[in-house]
Amino acid sequence: MKVKYELDKKDGNARLGKLHTNHGTVITPMFMPVGTCATVKTLTPEQVKECGSGVILSNTYHLWLRPGEDIVDKAGGLHQFMNYDGPILTDSGGFQVFSLAKNKKKDIVEEGVHFKSHIDGKKLFLTPELSIEIQNKLDSDIAMSFDECIPPNSTYEYTKNSTERTLRWAKRGKEAFNNEKQSLFGIVQGGSFEDLRKYSALETVKMDFDGYAIGGVAIGEEKDVTYNMIDYSIKYLPEDKPRYLMGVGEPLDILEGVKQGVDMFDCVLPTRLARHGNAFTREGKINLKNAKFKEDFTPIENDCDCYACKNYTKAYVKHLITCNESLGGTLLSIHNIRFLIKMMEEIREAIKEDRFIEYKEEFTKKYTN
Amino acid sequence: MKVKYELDKKDGNARLGKLHTNHGTVITPMFMPVGTCATVKTLTPEQVKECGSGVILSNTYHLWLRPGEDIVDKAGGLHQFMNYDGPILTDSGGFQVFSLAKNKKKDIVEEGVHFKSHIDGKKLFLTPELSIEIQNKLDSDIAMSFDECIPPNSTYEYTKNSTERTLRWAKRGKEAFNNEKQSLFGIVQGGSFEDLRKYSALETVKMDFDGYAIGGVAIGEEKDVTYNMIDYSIKYLPEDKPRYLMGVGEPLDILEGVKQGVDMFDCVLPTRLARHGNAFTREGKINLKNAKFKEDFTPIENDCDCYACKNYTKAYVKHLITCNESLGGTLLSIHNIRFLIKMMEEIREAIKEDRFIEYKEEFTKKYTN
Repeated sequence: MKVKYELDKKDGNARLGKLHTNHGTVITPMFMPVGTCATVKTLTPEQVKECGSGVILSNTYHLWLRPGEDIVDKAGGLHQFMNYDGPILTDSGGFQVFSLAKNKKKDIVEEGVHFKSHIDGKKLFLTPELSIEIQNKLDSDIAMSFDECIPPNSTYEYTKNSTERTLRWAKRGKEAFNNEKQSLFGIVQGGSFEDLRKYSALETVKMDFDGYAIGGVAIGEEKDVTYNMIDYSIKYLPEDKPRYLMGVGEPLDILEGVKQGVDMFDCVLPTRLARHGNAFTREGKINLKNAKFKEDFTPIENDCDCYACKNYTKAYVKHLITCNESLGGTLLSIHNIRFLIKMMEEIREAIKEDRFIEYKEEFTKKYTN
Repeated sequence: MKVKYELDKKDGNARLGKLHTNHGTVITPMFMPVGTCATVKTLTPEQVKECGSGVILSNTYHLWLRPGEDIVDKAGGLHQFMNYDGPILTDSGGFQVFSLAKNKKKDIVEEGVHFKSHIDGKKLFLTPELSIEIQNKLDSDIAMSFDECIPPNSTYEYTKNSTERTLRWAKRGKEAFNNEKQSLFGIVQGGSFEDLRKYSALETVKMDFDGYAIGGVAIGEEKDVTYNMIDYSIKYLPEDKPRYLMGVGEPLDILEGVKQGVDMFDCVLPTRLARHGNAFTREGKINLKNAKFKEDFTPIENDCDCYACKNYTKAYVKHLITCNESLGGTLLSIHNIRFLIKMMEEIREAIKEDRFIEYKEEFTKKYTN
């Protein structure tokens, strides 16, 4: 079955809905933790679920290199391989080609992208067809089209050419697609240019994907540019399909995305922050390495209902981080993922009660104070 | 309350019994996983318990340096600090002074040991009184006397002097001891010399500790020497007190210890092996880094009832280890700890049914084949 989006209610442009998948129904808007190498770093699938997580994201590029899609296929697909029975979305590898390619050198041709492995420098060539073939074998619930994620501040001409090529790649990927149970999302690109975003959105929608993503956002540009990029894209997306803002996990960016009508978010932020000792709190981020937490026997965040906050103190987490004990990263990952997922729960409640804008303002005020 | 040992049954010298502590009763013989820095590496306390674990061990030396015993004390003691409500044993720091002291340089004087921190090279001075004071503050269920752990192949003269000093240190520690709820174990030393082991055992027992450990064993000497060291010591220990063979976690050594009447074992082996990709199996150790496991979709060990074996394949664990994902270490730690604890369960069953020697032989044959 392909995923199906059901719109339940709107509050302004913010949408409350359901995404039905082969591995269960999730309520949107929602946040997807990232399990790059078929594992949400430092966590068991049970720990991820305990955070209230629904869909998780895994990376085509990483799984292509290790262990290889054929091994995942032989294992019975990604769910079986990593022991996760909830929905899984795989990205296309497009973003990683651009962010991880060795020495950032890559050669983009019409056929695909030549680049070098970030692990051993081996020459690699990824095409839209290959990206789809890998994802078909990984057997995630949702596959993504292969796109070029262009750097911020790209010229109009470069962006225009890239956007057109990404459309051609989307078409080629869709034609190569061959997995009955899997869904395929298209990705809107177009950089920061209003007309190119519109063009990309309209042309992508014409191809009739199972859902639409907004790509190339929040990768270094200014906040207002980011927010405009969402606006330029989302207004051309159909109401009856899910909308996914790729790579966005900063709480305030999520709130802005929801305001504009986004249903799905993903980001490595909660787990990456955790590994560096950082925790989300309603009053902004804190770093547990800070000496002031040495004798702080309160939870990471008061009133948080996560496993870490219910059972451990800042002093203990600080101790673990100081001693380089992986349980520190585990506890902070649990807290940070739960933080974003709890926020999504509150966002959905607010939309239901037509007070999303008030919620957004209140959250922002507290968070930035 | 001090710990209380209850002997239920003997099969040869192997003992089946119970150890009553302030944090529950555990059945012996048993294996204690090690949580050096107030965390069993890569695991939550719930995961440790799921392995069937009772007592865990934590390290006085490490906790003295980080976070410091006063912080643990202010947190309400070690149980509270690390969220573990089962029994905890703390070692005295003696072994770490000798194994971890920076550049292995140390200066042993009658008063204690001068050495340098393995973290920052800071000058440190640990005495029997200080070791006990730290442990009193950590508030573990069982504290250990401060001893000198001498290198294998020490001369008779060195060993004799050291053994006598360790006895004086034990006495000083016992006098300094000040925690009503905590128990204190003495440690038998004496190197590989029969008369010194006997002397050390008899003199330590005279001081009337709550339990007795055999120290300085399995730190590099030959198997038969190790086994003799146990024999030279254990025959002088009282039947009504628990006996603890320190730092022993190799399955065959545990079996030998049980045969001679040991009740308690601890070792970093299961978690350390795990971090290097190794797993215990009934047919000996395997290394999951081995290419042959790439497409092996069977569990780490067939018929194992641990969380890792019930839910994951060798291929997946190998993938995690290859990608340096900490979940790999978590899964292997769970398996390895469960392996030893399951073995202890079987050992207890065998003692109950008067077939311990058969069990030992069968296990050994399979394990070394």
